[in-house]
Amino acid sequence: MDYVYGPGKNHLFVPGPVNIPEPVLRAMNRNNEDYRSPAIPAMTKTLLEDVKKIFKTTTGTPFLIPTTGTGAWESALTNTLSPGDRTVSFLIGQFSLLWIDQQQRLNFNVDVVESEWGQGANLDILAEKLAADHSHTIKAICIVHNETATGVTNNLATVRKLLDHYRHPALLLVDGVSSICALDFRMDEWGVDVALTGSQKALSLPTGLGIVCASPKALEASKSAKSVRVFFDWNDYLKFYKLGTFWPYTPSIQLLYGLRAALDLIFEEGLDSVIARHTRMGKATRLAVEAWGLKNCTQKEEWYSDTVTAVLVPPYIDSAEIVKRAWKRYNMSLGLGLNKVAGKVFRIGHLGNLNELQLLGCLAGVEMILKDVGYPVKLGSGVAAACAYLQNNIPMIPSRI
Amino acid sequence: MDYVYGPGKNHLFVPGPVNIPEPVLRAMNRNNEDYRSPAIPAMTKTLLEDVKKIFKTTTGTPFLIPTTGTGAWESALTNTLSPGDRTVSFLIGQFSLLWIDQQQRLNFNVDVVESEWGQGANLDILAEKLAADHSHTIKAICIVHNETATGVTNNLATVRKLLDHYRHPALLLVDGVSSICALDFRMDEWGVDVALTGSQKALSLPTGLGIVCASPKALEASKSAKSVRVFFDWNDYLKFYKLGTFWPYTPSIQLLYGLRAALDLIFEEGLDSVIARHTRMGKATRLAVEAWGLKNCTQKEEWYSDTVTAVLVPPYIDSAEIVKRAWKRYNMSLGLGLNKVAGKVFRIGHLGNLNELQLLGCLAGVEMILKDVGYPVKLGSGVAAACAYLQNNIPMIPSRI
Amino acid sequence: MDYVYGPGKNHLFVPGPVNIPEPVLRAMNRNNEDYRSPAIPAMTKTLLEDVKKIFKTTTGTPFLIPTTGTGAWESALTNTLSPGDRTVSFLIGQFSLLWIDQQQRLNFNVDVVESEWGQGANLDILAEKLAADHSHTIKAICIVHNETATGVTNNLATVRKLLDHYRHPALLLVDGVSSICALDFRMDEWGVDVALTGSQKALSLPTGLGIVCASPKALEASKSAKSVRVFFDWNDYLKFYKLGTFWPYTPSIQLLYGLRAALDLIFEEGLDSVIARHTRMGKATRLAVEAWGLKNCTQKEEWYSDTVTAVLVPPYIDSAEIVKRAWKRYNMSLGLGLNKVAGKVFRIGHLGNLNELQLLGCLAGVEMILKDVGYPVKLGSGVAAACAYLQNNIPMIPSRI
Amino acid sequence: MDYVYGPGKNHLFVPGPVNIPEPVLRAMNRNNEDYRSPAIPAMTKTLLEDVKKIFKTTTGTPFLIPTTGTGAWESALTNTLSPGDRTVSFLIGQFSLLWIDQQQRLNFNVDVVESEWGQGANLDILAEKLAADHSHTIKAICIVHNETATGVTNNLATVRKLLDHYRHPALLLVDGVSSICALDFRMDEWGVDVALTGSQKALSLPTGLGIVCASPKALEASKSAKSVRVFFDWNDYLKFYKLGTFWPYTPSIQLLYGLRAALDLIFEEGLDSVIARHTRMGKATRLAVEAWGLKNCTQKEEWYSDTVTAVLVPPYIDSAEIVKRAWKRYNMSLGLGLNKVAGKVFRIGHLGNLNELQLLGCLAGVEMILKDVGYPVKLGSGVAAACAYLQNNIPMIPSRI
Repeated sequence: MDYVYGPGKNHLFVPGPVNIPEPVLRAMNRNNEDYRSPAIPAMTKTLLEDVKKIFKTTTGTPFLIPTTGTGAWESALTNTLSPGDRTVSFLIGQFSLLWIDQQQRLNFNVDVVESEWGQGANLDILAEKLAADHSHTIKAICIVHNETATGVTNNLATVRKLLDHYRHPALLLVDGVSSICALDFRMDEWGVDVALTGSQKALSLPTGLGIVCASPKALEASKSAKSVRVFFDWNDYLKFYKLGTFWPYTPSIQLLYGLRAALDLIFEEGLDSVIARHTRMGKATRLAVEAWGLKNCTQKEEWYSDTVTAVLVPPYIDSAEIVKRAWKRYNMSLGLGLNKVAGKVFRIGHLGNLNELQLLGCLAGVEMILKDVGYPVKLGSGVAAACAYLQNNIPMIPSRI
Repeated sequence: MDYVYGPGKNHLFVPGPVNIPEPVLRAMNRNNEDYRSPAIPAMTKTLLEDVKKIFKTTTGTPFLIPTTGTGAWESALTNTLSPGDRTVSFLIGQFSLLWIDQQQRLNFNVDVVESEWGQGANLDILAEKLAADHSHTIKAICIVHNETATGVTNNLATVRKLLDHYRHPALLLVDGVSSICALDFRMDEWGVDVALTGSQKALSLPTGLGIVCASPKALEASKSAKSVRVFFDWNDYLKFYKLGTFWPYTPSIQLLYGLRAALDLIFEEGLDSVIARHTRMGKATRLAVEAWGLKNCTQKEEWYSDTVTAVLVPPYIDSAEIVKRAWKRYNMSLGLGLNKVAGKVFRIGHLGNLNELQLLGCLAGVEMILKDVGYPVKLGSGVAAACAYLQNNIPMIPSRI
Repeated sequence: MDYVYGPGKNHLFVPGPVNIPEPVLRAMNRNNEDYRSPAIPAMTKTLLEDVKKIFKTTTGTPFLIPTTGTGAWESALTNTLSPGDRTVSFLIGQFSLLWIDQQQRLNFNVDVVESEWGQGANLDILAEKLAADHSHTIKAICIVHNETATGVTNNLATVRKLLDHYRHPALLLVDGVSSICALDFRMDEWGVDVALTGSQKALSLPTGLGIVCASPKALEASKSAKSVRVFFDWNDYLKFYKLGTFWPYTPSIQLLYGLRAALDLIFEEGLDSVIARHTRMGKATRLAVEAWGLKNCTQKEEWYSDTVTAVLVPPYIDSAEIVKRAWKRYNMSLGLGLNKVAGKVFRIGHLGNLNELQLLGCLAGVEMILKDVGYPVKLGSGVAAACAYLQNNIPMIPSRI
Repeated sequence: MDYVYGPGKNHLFVPGPVNIPEPVLRAMNRNNEDYRSPAIPAMTKTLLEDVKKIFKTTTGTPFLIPTTGTGAWESALTNTLSPGDRTVSFLIGQFSLLWIDQQQRLNFNVDVVESEWGQGANLDILAEKLAADHSHTIKAICIVHNETATGVTNNLATVRKLLDHYRHPALLLVDGVSSICALDFRMDEWGVDVALTGSQKALSLPTGLGIVCASPKALEASKSAKSVRVFFDWNDYLKFYKLGTFWPYTPSIQLLYGLRAALDLIFEEGLDSVIARHTRMGKATRLAVEAWGLKNCTQKEEWYSDTVTAVLVPPYIDSAEIVKRAWKRYNMSLGLGLNKVAGKVFRIGHLGNLNELQLLGCLAGVEMILKDVGYPVKLGSGVAAACAYLQNNIPMIPSRI
């Protein structure tokens, strides 16, 4: 009756799309509506106001674009830059690579700062480039906050400090796809000019909304940016914002109601509690990996990601086989190693609407799979390590009676 | 927005109501329909035919009654017995107790065979009673196949053997509420006269359908049974079965579509595979309990239940506190100890649409709770024991591409 | 993919089960939950309090029973009466007939007051019987508020007046299945002792809840009532009400959340507005019937029902053919004529969550069907008559922005 | 509990987003899934194959892009044309205007052929332009098959004839947003090079999929087209089609399952039956408009649209008031007049999953609203006219038992 089926719940541990909370599924279980009626604009107004909170901005202008993260990238770039503009961009994994590819295809002059996969953005080189750029040829720093392919979180506060130190006016464009609403992110405090995420990540919705937030400086830049854009043009939105009808083209009614429910849940739990929960999940996962005697793809603690862990497997194991087994035997979805780390890592996504017992089920499953593929894991060891930490750190659920 | 809320999925491990599969939720997500249209009878016909398969009967007549297990009990009794009739009934836990209470209130002459809670029905005493009952005053043997309060499975094959051995014509009425569709159950082979279950148990639907199946002998008995009954009267159903409209009063459209979907899923997995999965879940749970150094409320292996495990806690721990913590800190629902075993046992339900990784998440959670309440559990020990068994025994999922 | 399918929405105009509002469908789209957790009792408490409002009682005690209307009848009777008790009961159509049949099978001494189908309860005869009953042999008056088979509403205020006039202590038991929450119903004011309805009627939920409300006098009667009952016994509920856990057996989690949502919608619209809407629907339907040149099965205006209209067809037409055509050609579900009026009437149910344009679509459909089966209807005539009335009477929707 | 609420169903008669069938809502009521598992590509393969059928193409290559119609336009243009390329484009209403605006902003040299709003594309002028264009400076003809703002359907067969007659190699790019899957559309027969639609139109899904189909000639053109594009680039899709993983970026899992269900329903009804149903709906609506004594915005019968009817109101009425009343009093959503026809027309969308009785309810509602706003309509007249036609033309529903 369904396309494929296995008994029980699918254990979804890819780093996106992630598990949707039941209240959000309920909110989206509805017929279409006329988006030009008074109801949709009234709701949209609350969404635009509330979505700023997850960016921690009061001065930013959000755009809810019917697209994916790739489209959100394009929106960030084409509204703020002109062909030929120099960007500094950090290649540290598959998603930063794809964004750089996009920047190149959009005809920017991309100054690529490459690191080994598993390392964070090389900010020393950024410092050098900023120091050397007296004539301000660098128009934008493009950085992925959390590289989903390797589980590396970059230090945005340092990026801002460097820009300030060198009094450099470059725009700071941040891919927050697998960070915003899960990791500590501060748009205003860190002077981020464009930040973006996708609905299917920490917001725990279906795919379909690229959420982009622009600082006043970015909006100003959009007035002179010469990149060709229509579908992704912020001006069309701004025009309709003024009219109070908000939508230059048909939005997904279901995703709007879903976003409303998702934000309500996040605020009910508390954004800081949501972030603390992700911190716990990341820590617990890493403790399990260590207990298994495996290495984290991320080379230093400062870069550890609390939304996704890329686990290195020994050379005699194909990590793709682990992902395949997870799906065919345990009804679990893990993340593949991509590109340079294909076959070498598998990834555990631990972002979005998830709790600790779900993660522990996943970790137990990974242990069995490791055994399946011939790795001499001590069964229960990872779960034991994670439990020892979690048992001391999980708070009571605040919204329970 | 919801009545209560905790992040992530609720871990539902009470022995009913159990987890509903997503395809079943989808099937039930619908408006009402006219149950007198040609569509509902056409579907009902397939349901009545297919539901017999989960009872393993070809000669039985099933009734889908808009009620709960308690109502299904009443249907079984009042259609086959007359006030004053002698029944032999086994008191081994809270649910057999409640059924006996019902039998008494319905004015039967209940011959109660009591065992210590944690033991199975005393079939030696049954043998004695049958041997002594030359005049066939015993009209029915009423037995709970699986006592949900203590996790005890009774041996129905032996009951049948005894009846056959003594050539006793008593009806065999079986409460299969927490067994049918999860444990090995054979209505025809074991000569069960009335078997019953509820939709919210192994069928993994919402509460609302009492499913009763009557042997030809039971149907015959219903012709002379003098117990007063209207709502639960089989004759009203039989009248409408003949008409081909099937329903003496309004059924729940949603539950009918849900039952259709539930049966489809069970047959897709294979009923024997479903039962084998329950066997695995039961075994894995007991291995964990053993690893924790705790005792099973069930006193002998022959009675171990594969749908629910009642775990005895040390005297210095209140098992209700475990259930409370599970809910307030871990978003998990465990079963309370009821009546005589209140405070002494907590119960892990492992029936219905569930897979191994879900159970392992539950077991990891129980370990943390045990630590929370001061029991010196070795974290990870239960999960390790369960994994060691499961890793060797879980089959590939057959319906995957 | 579905059991049967026709393009567009099914037009559901049977007098139950009725259309479920989308917000209620959403509320019910959920997994099972542990009904023994703190959440379900907390919600149940609000339900029991709020459900009294639709009965217009402050002193009644409500019971939410997992059953249908037939079971609710049985609950009302067996908890208040003893075998052999004399009831006065009015036979005016199929549902009052079935209730009388139940009363007889439950061994009451039923004093049947029969009227022609299409007429209301003969209250003159009731007056005579009360006047003659000096020794108070009549233990209960059993009356259907709205006979769904013929579209006849009885005058309960008059029944109360008669009882008061003759100072007769008989209980007043009312079937409000197709009236409560749609027609003017006043439990306390009219001194109703037991009132009952089903979830699939004006409450616009799926089938599955029999909602019974007992006056203090009825509760008192239950203490001495000798009818055998277990599943329907109020005492089991009262015991759990005191404990604050509320449920003697497993409720349908989905129906509880659905009832919460249904009550919220009713109170948001306003119970009196809901009733006024039904008044409009009834009136509009009758105007259409008149414009078609057809007769209402209900013989006098004082009995006209605002929840269902039974339309008499000319002798040369089989009303069953109308219902069949509605379904096969227009994706519409109309009510059949039942028993004595089979083939002679078809029924338009206009109760529950429904608005005027839905009804007008139905009326237009009926016109086409009448033409299909050879009745010389003037197409558009019924709709014109209904519109002329509605256009002057529909209020603005209060809950719109 | 919901954002706004009115009793009963909302009557959704805007020309998009349209009513979603219940089976499609059910199919989409699901958690996210890993789109890199074997299941999603296996399903995607069937979608890409089946979606070609609604375009009536065997040689085209479809793209399912997470975007809206505006994005689908951009995909069609940027993949086939280079900046400066001359397009011939017809301005006949708001949506053709917006497409032309996009073409201009994408730096094409747009040769605009303007007609009065209410008329179709001026194909005589096209003929002249083609005749004069010996050097083939025209690179593409861009034409909206059905202009949603005015209810005008253009004759694509004639466009193809003209191109053939003048042996002109220009690409034929067709906006089929409010036509494909509802009106007669033949991609291969008419030599359409790019055709596109959106999921929220005749496919009756939520917004979120731009469905674009490219002829072999269009694919060839994409190899040399120099328009900058990344998110909308067909090459990224084609690369993943070859890999068999299909998705260059995360699709909406829910929309894929929804599309599968939508296509299944369409094929079950039969695409030709679906189109015939739209023909009936259009005809019935126009008969009602005529009966009301109002004019169709569409000036000639040859351009009448079977998916949307724009109704001209007398000068003393503001059509926006009609739309507002529909929503606030009748829970109905009608289409506003846009831009040049604002205040002058209101629109009845009659596309997608809709049946005749739904339309008749809408027409009855419009009659009451016309009366509300002071137009001397004869109530029932439009419904009568529509019924007279429909009663002779509606077929039996084929998929009923």
